[in-house]
Amino acid sequence: MGGEVILLDVWSSPFGVRVRIALAEKGVKYEYREEVLDNKSELLLKSNPVHKKIPVLIHGDKCVSESLIIVQYVDEVWKNSPLLPEDPYERAVARFWADFVDKKVYESATRIWTRKGDAPAEAAKDFIESLKILESSLGDKSFFGGEKLGFVDVALVPFVDWFHAYEVHGGFSVAAECPKIDAWAKRCKEKESVSMASQDPEKILMVVERLKKKFGYV
Amino acid sequence: MGGEVILLDVWSSPFGVRVRIALAEKGVKYEYREEVLDNKSELLLKSNPVHKKIPVLIHGDKCVSESLIIVQYVDEVWKNSPLLPEDPYERAVARFWADFVDKKVYESATRIWTRKGDAPAEAAKDFIESLKILESSLGDKSFFGGEKLGFVDVALVPFVDWFHAYEVHGGFSVAAECPKIDAWAKRCKEKESVSMASQDPEKILMVVERLKKKFGYV
Repeated sequence: MGGEVILLDVWSSPFGVRVRIALAEKGVKYEYREEVLDNKSELLLKSNPVHKKIPVLIHGDKCVSESLIIVQYVDEVWKNSPLLPEDPYERAVARFWADFVDKKVYESATRIWTRKGDAPAEAAKDFIESLKILESSLGDKSFFGGEKLGFVDVALVPFVDWFHAYEVHGGFSVAAECPKIDAWAKRCKEKESVSMASQDPEKILMVVERLKKKFGYV
Repeated sequence: MGGEVILLDVWSSPFGVRVRIALAEKGVKYEYREEVLDNKSELLLKSNPVHKKIPVLIHGDKCVSESLIIVQYVDEVWKNSPLLPEDPYERAVARFWADFVDKKVYESATRIWTRKGDAPAEAAKDFIESLKILESSLGDKSFFGGEKLGFVDVALVPFVDWFHAYEVHGGFSVAAECPKIDAWAKRCKEKESVSMASQDPEKILMVVERLKKKFGYV
């Protein structure tokens, strides 16, 4: 399959977790290399010179970055346990919701803990609304991918470990507001690919507190 | 191919132009329906209830939105004149640069004419830098897709008609700063799929002036 696989990542990154879940779903063995964002490795700067961001998947002499692009690459190279459906329309729908996670869920979630004044409350409202929209899309399915974990699940589930930090800073409960998302999250966590990549929500809260101080969000 | 094709669009939208070029490259016949953004059609609100934005491609009973997702859908349904390469790594590279157009080129370009004070000058610098990065990626190739128009070309070329408006508001010349991008743009315009979807840069400038007044950017 074209050589050794290395993942440049940071343990707490939900974007990195996406890639870790995709690789686990495919059973791809890889070397995990933890990066320090204040002191990025030469390899990271060389392999993602444009954005200089993790995650980067190095596969032989090829470097792929941007998490959803990496997940699609992984899905196209290792064809077992497909994450995207085969039908072009269903693929477009999956891409739409994964893009929605980036544009609406992550965007509003980040505003919850990086803004001051009334902004966090407004962000919390947007965040809950985005999850409610996803609940409608989930409907009565077990996963966004249907009966099995798919592209949208992989895009969204890494943020579940961050829910606690969002709840603390936004003053709400995902389980109370969005019970279907809560049940979906629990189903995802039963999958080894997801549970192995999961992080302790208390540690994520500490990351958020540290970042708030570092960037002056407090 | 699954029924009638309708495109809900606005003539000046670079995102809509992406879809028009993709459909033209494939030779897909479709009905073009101009939307009025201050008075969106019921069909638009129904077919893209989440973002309520153009462009939307309606194909039989299926609705696809978000321009790059539509272009991929078009590429997967109509397989002639492929826009994305076949190789998974080359596909990831094409997706990376198309995403770069959205995240860096469009983002900085929009700041040029929507901000006040020193911000437009800073945005102009970022915009030129993003084009220079794309120039490096283009290298000596005719198109980002190699010898023929591909996914990245389709993602970027609609903004060429907006260059004049960016130049007027940012005080620079793309041709002077990025001669390779200028030459690439001229090559693209020689393609009928591109020239047919092109808009008069003076009219785009008028759109920008109108939007500046409407949203109080002046």
